[in-house]
Amino acid sequence: MIDELVSTVEPVNADTAAAARERHRRLAKPPGSLGHLEDVGIQLAAISGASPPPVPRSPTVIVAAADHGVHAQGVSDWPQDVTRLMVSTVAGGGAAVNAIAAAVGASVTVLDVGTVADAVADGVVDARVRAGTRDITSEPAMTDDECAAAIAAGARAASDLIAGGADLLATGDLGIANTTASAALIAALTGEPASVVTGRGANLDDQRVPVKVKAIEAALHRHGAERDPLRTLASLGGFEHAALTGVMLAGAAGRVPVVLDGLIANAAALAAVGMCPAVSGYLIAGHMSAEPGARAALAALGSRALVDLGMRLGEGTGALLAIPTVRAAARVLSDMSTLDEVLAGA
Amino acid sequence: MIDELVSTVEPVNADTAAAARERHRRLAKPPGSLGHLEDVGIQLAAISGASPPPVPRSPTVIVAAADHGVHAQGVSDWPQDVTRLMVSTVAGGGAAVNAIAAAVGASVTVLDVGTVADAVADGVVDARVRAGTRDITSEPAMTDDECAAAIAAGARAASDLIAGGADLLATGDLGIANTTASAALIAALTGEPASVVTGRGANLDDQRVPVKVKAIEAALHRHGAERDPLRTLASLGGFEHAALTGVMLAGAAGRVPVVLDGLIANAAALAAVGMCPAVSGYLIAGHMSAEPGARAALAALGSRALVDLGMRLGEGTGALLAIPTVRAAARVLSDMSTLDEVLAGA
Repeated sequence: MIDELVSTVEPVNADTAAAARERHRRLAKPPGSLGHLEDVGIQLAAISGASPPPVPRSPTVIVAAADHGVHAQGVSDWPQDVTRLMVSTVAGGGAAVNAIAAAVGASVTVLDVGTVADAVADGVVDARVRAGTRDITSEPAMTDDECAAAIAAGARAASDLIAGGADLLATGDLGIANTTASAALIAALTGEPASVVTGRGANLDDQRVPVKVKAIEAALHRHGAERDPLRTLASLGGFEHAALTGVMLAGAAGRVPVVLDGLIANAAALAAVGMCPAVSGYLIAGHMSAEPGARAALAALGSRALVDLGMRLGEGTGALLAIPTVRAAARVLSDMSTLDEVLAGA
Repeated sequence: MIDELVSTVEPVNADTAAAARERHRRLAKPPGSLGHLEDVGIQLAAISGASPPPVPRSPTVIVAAADHGVHAQGVSDWPQDVTRLMVSTVAGGGAAVNAIAAAVGASVTVLDVGTVADAVADGVVDARVRAGTRDITSEPAMTDDECAAAIAAGARAASDLIAGGADLLATGDLGIANTTASAALIAALTGEPASVVTGRGANLDDQRVPVKVKAIEAALHRHGAERDPLRTLASLGGFEHAALTGVMLAGAAGRVPVVLDGLIANAAALAAVGMCPAVSGYLIAGHMSAEPGARAALAALGSRALVDLGMRLGEGTGALLAIPTVRAAARVLSDMSTLDEVLAGA
């Protein structure tokens, strides 16, 4: 399934990117004066294969939720049950991701891909592969088959949304202890040491951060020098990382921009691009998380974030805040007069 | 008139700010995890005198346009007539500010407060004080009365918009050579040397930047050590700076947030806050312009910008991109469940 999905991803369109770049040169403004907004418009033209690119009208954030066996190592102050409570809160519309989605005109889809909850909450897509991953300090988080199932679940959710009219996907996540799995993935996939890419997550006590670093170091030691991104994802990641990898693959296959949230999405993006380098052209770094691993991951991806507000909540909140900028980048290319048109009207 | 306006500005409400800060502590997320977005929500509560604050629904960008006598010193590669052409382009809907306003759901008002055009374009508010300022290298840009008239024009436009339902004002500007006047104002009002706060503006040739610095140094020398912000504004600024100062004063008087665009707005904000320190609580730094003076001005204002995308176009483009983030900051406070509510539903 994954090989098939990977084979359907085409590189972004260099011709329409060049056309958008040329159009930016002719618009009624000093060339380059819109900075990174111009780059985003050019990327949208490359993704859509059209210049000017269409303006995203139906963005959706996919919030993938799962639990983590490494929670047993004391890497978070929050009980694991908080994942279930937050899944219900998002499904009920009371979380930060819902407030921000409403502010930017996006819809919210929640996918339970592996929480330890007894039942899947109302309004949540049931795509559970297993009740949480295994503890990465002592064994692989997922089997290869489980990892593939979670990737497929994310890809299916994304494909269904695209078929239903979604023209921009944002990534979101829920899962107590998932900054630990993310930092482990980022360390393994970038080569950075655990101590550099590990942060406080959901307000972990400063004295407890070394516990988290030690758990990640143990997992990296157990995992060894494996370089295959799918094996690394299965060994160190979470079901939500795998699902978001699937979202990215399916978004790219569907030629839809995928706006990344912070640390968890950045880790999943490294896996997705590792499996299928052409995916990178479809990814837009929505925001720079305050978690230290995000910087290392985005540097490895060669991406510049659109939003940098010291946020570190997850859920998709940072990706959502970037959506109006993505829309504006497209509208600039479609709506603006050229300098020649302005001078002709003189 | 200005004294009267200044006297109507009340400090922002510390009680509702404290209530919003406390609410942020109780929401269903790790405290502080929304970073600067939390600060913006608290500021909106302080401005509106309500916690949670209302979500801005009718934002408007006021684009103040004017010409500059210092253009004669060769500080720009663009002919002065481009101001008139861009005023018409904005009024006709074909400029960057229009595209971005459409993307974020804002309306656009254009105010000709002192261009050298023969006539005011259709769809533009005629508030012309004079056909451009005088050359600041040899004489004051405006008389005190002219400066006051431009402040009043901006304040009137803002008050009219607020009376018509605008609940958030963004600042915009048009005016060939206005980065020169802005850098002069910022140098005079922050004490930074001209060479530090002067940039390439609308793509000025690198070899020509020293010409611009020299013109600003001459203006600062002529202006002397005057420290009164109104006199400094009249001596070194442009009619659009004065009008935007009026917009800020009237926005503060009307208890409406004023989102600042880049360099020109930052310079005007220094003057507005100099005249009326309580205004600062109503100002939200929309973006960090790529022009070097912006950093010095925002540092002096103690403001952190919401958007930092290497933009340096002006027109209000950067301020507009910040509006969805301002809306999101308000919605987070009004829409989110508290942690207690989440736990009660467990």
